[in-house]
Amino acid sequence: MAVENLAPRPVDARPVDDISAVIDRLAAATAQGMEAVNQLILSRSDSPVDMVPAVANHLIEAGGKRLRPMLTIAASSLFGGAHGNEVRFAAAVEFMHNATLLHDDVVDESDMRRGRPAARTIWGNQASVLVGDFLLGQAFLMMVESGDLDALGVLSRAAAVIAEGEVFQLAKAGDLATTPADYERIIKAKTATLFEAATEVGAMAGGSDAAARQALAAYGRELGMAFQLVDDVLDYGGARGSLGKNVGDDLREGKMTLPIILALETATEVEREVIAAALGNAGSGDDQLADVVAILAHYDTLGRTMALAERHAEAARLALADIPASPERDILFTVPEFCTSRAY
Amino acid sequence: MAVENLAPRPVDARPVDDISAVIDRLAAATAQGMEAVNQLILSRSDSPVDMVPAVANHLIEAGGKRLRPMLTIAASSLFGGAHGNEVRFAAAVEFMHNATLLHDDVVDESDMRRGRPAARTIWGNQASVLVGDFLLGQAFLMMVESGDLDALGVLSRAAAVIAEGEVFQLAKAGDLATTPADYERIIKAKTATLFEAATEVGAMAGGSDAAARQALAAYGRELGMAFQLVDDVLDYGGARGSLGKNVGDDLREGKMTLPIILALETATEVEREVIAAALGNAGSGDDQLADVVAILAHYDTLGRTMALAERHAEAARLALADIPASPERDILFTVPEFCTSRAY
Repeated sequence: MAVENLAPRPVDARPVDDISAVIDRLAAATAQGMEAVNQLILSRSDSPVDMVPAVANHLIEAGGKRLRPMLTIAASSLFGGAHGNEVRFAAAVEFMHNATLLHDDVVDESDMRRGRPAARTIWGNQASVLVGDFLLGQAFLMMVESGDLDALGVLSRAAAVIAEGEVFQLAKAGDLATTPADYERIIKAKTATLFEAATEVGAMAGGSDAAARQALAAYGRELGMAFQLVDDVLDYGGARGSLGKNVGDDLREGKMTLPIILALETATEVEREVIAAALGNAGSGDDQLADVVAILAHYDTLGRTMALAERHAEAARLALADIPASPERDILFTVPEFCTSRAY
Repeated sequence: MAVENLAPRPVDARPVDDISAVIDRLAAATAQGMEAVNQLILSRSDSPVDMVPAVANHLIEAGGKRLRPMLTIAASSLFGGAHGNEVRFAAAVEFMHNATLLHDDVVDESDMRRGRPAARTIWGNQASVLVGDFLLGQAFLMMVESGDLDALGVLSRAAAVIAEGEVFQLAKAGDLATTPADYERIIKAKTATLFEAATEVGAMAGGSDAAARQALAAYGRELGMAFQLVDDVLDYGGARGSLGKNVGDDLREGKMTLPIILALETATEVEREVIAAALGNAGSGDDQLADVVAILAHYDTLGRTMALAERHAEAARLALADIPASPERDILFTVPEFCTSRAY
C-alpha cells in the first residue's frame, strides 16, 4: 500500500457528495447481511408485553445509521467465510448499543434522541431502564446461540467496560481538573470498546486468523475514538463552531469533553469562570454557550480536537494495511474519513 | 418419601427458633463454597473507577441473606461433582440479583434498600443504572469463564425474562383490571425465574442428569413463587396485617399484588374507591393504609395469598421427591418452609 493513500487528505479537497456516498457504499456492500440483521433485530425486540416492542421500536425505527452492525458484517466479509454468526453478532452489537442509548437517556436526562422525543419522555425512566435490560439480555442470548464462547467473552467484557467508562464519566462530570488522559480513558471505554467489539467479532465470524482479528479490533477501536472525538466537537457546532440546534448539551450536562479540557488548560481566570458558570448548568442559555464557544475558538480547541480525531482515523486506516485488498477492505478504508468529515 | 412429610404443618406448631435455624443450616452447609463466592463477588465488583466498588459494595455489604447463591451451591452439592463452576455461577446469580435491585430502586424511586439508604439517594439514579449494567456485564463474563454455554443460555434467557416481567408489572401499575393470571405471570418472570436459574445452574455445575436438572429448576421456580407471594403479603404487614415500618410501599407505588387483586374481585363499590384512591398515591398516609388493610382482612386476601404461597412451597418440596436423600437435600427441603414462615 502506497504511503500517500494513508495520509489525511486536505479538508477542502473532499466533495460532500463523496463523503455521504461512503455510508451508501458501506450500506450497499453489507445489504444482504443487514437484511438478515434487521429481521433478527425486529423479531428479537418483540415480546408479548406490548410495552417492550413499543419502547424498543421507537428507538430502533428512528434508525440511526446502524453503523456498528454494518461494520460487523463488513468485517466478516473480509475473510470470505461468513457462517451466519455474523448476523447474530451484528444484531447483538446493535442491541447493546440501543440498550446503552436507553440507559444514557435516563443518565443524561435527555429529552431528544435521534431527532425524536427520547423514550423516557413518553414511557418514563422506568421503561427505558427495563427495556434496556431486556435488550441486553437478548443480546447475550443471541451470542449464546452462536455457540462462540470467544466472541461471547469479547462482548460481555465490552458490556462491563462500557458501563465502567460511563461511571467514570459521571464521576468526572463538572470536574475542572479532568485531564486529557482521563478523557481518553472515558471515550475509549464508553465508545471505542463497542466499535472494537463490533469489528473484532465480525472478523471472528468470518474466520480470520489471530493477527487479522487483532487488526480489525484495532481498526474498530481507532475508528470509535475518532467517532467520539468528532461527536464531542459536533456538540459545540463542529470544527467551525456553528451554533444551531442540538448544540451545547454536553456543556449543560457538565460533560468534560476535550474541547473544554484543552481550553481550561490555558484559559485566563475570567475565561475559566465563564466556562465553570455554564458547565453543568441546565439553564445555560445561547449567550452563555456562545461565550464558551468563543473561548474554544480563541484557543482553537475544536480544531485541535479534530486534529486528534484525524490521527485516530489515520490509525484506523493503518490498521487495515495488512488485510488483503478487496472491495470491502476499500470501503472500510474510507469509513474513518466519513466519520471525521461530519464535523466540517 | 412419606406423604405426611410433604403436608404443610400447622402454623402454630412451628417454633420460631426452628425457622431461623433453617437459614443457619443452609449457611453452614454451603459455608465453604460461599466463602469462595464472597471472595469472587468482592474481586469482581472492584474497579479502578472508585464509584463502581463504592456503589456495588454499599449494596453488597448490606448483605441480604445471599439466599440465591446459597441455593446454587447447595444444588450443586446434591450431585457430588462440584468442579468450581458452581462458585462462578453463584456469584453471577448474585450479581444479576444486585443489578436488578439497583435498577429496581430507580424504577420504584425507592429511598431505602436492605435497611440502608438506597444507592440512588447517595450517588444518584445515574450511578445506580450504570453500576447495575456493570454488574450485569461482570455476571456474563464470569459465566463465559465457566465455559458452559448451556448454563450461559439459562442465565441470559433469565436476564431477558426478568426485565420483560418488570416491564409488564410497570404496564399494569395502578390497573384495577389486573387479573390473578397477570399477577402470576409477573412474579413468575420477575422473581421465580432467577430462583429457577440459581438452582438449575447449580445442578448443572454439580453434573446432574437432565431429569435432576429439571427437578432442581422446578424447585427453584416454585420456591421463588412462594418467596414473592410472601413478600407481597409482608408489604401489607404479613398474614396478620400488622402495620409497622416498611409497610405499604407496594400500595403507594401502585403495584397490583395478589392481596389487592383478590380484594378488588369481590369488594363493594365504596371499598373499590378506597383502594383506588390509595393505590399509586405516593402521599397515602397510615390511615389510608389501615383502611385498605381492613378491606384485605375482611376478604381474607392476605390469608388466601399465603395459602397460595404454601401450595407453591409444597410444590417446591415435591420437586425434590426423586432426589436421593442427603443432608443437603434435607436442608433444601426445609427452605420453602423458612420462606413462608416469614409472613406469620
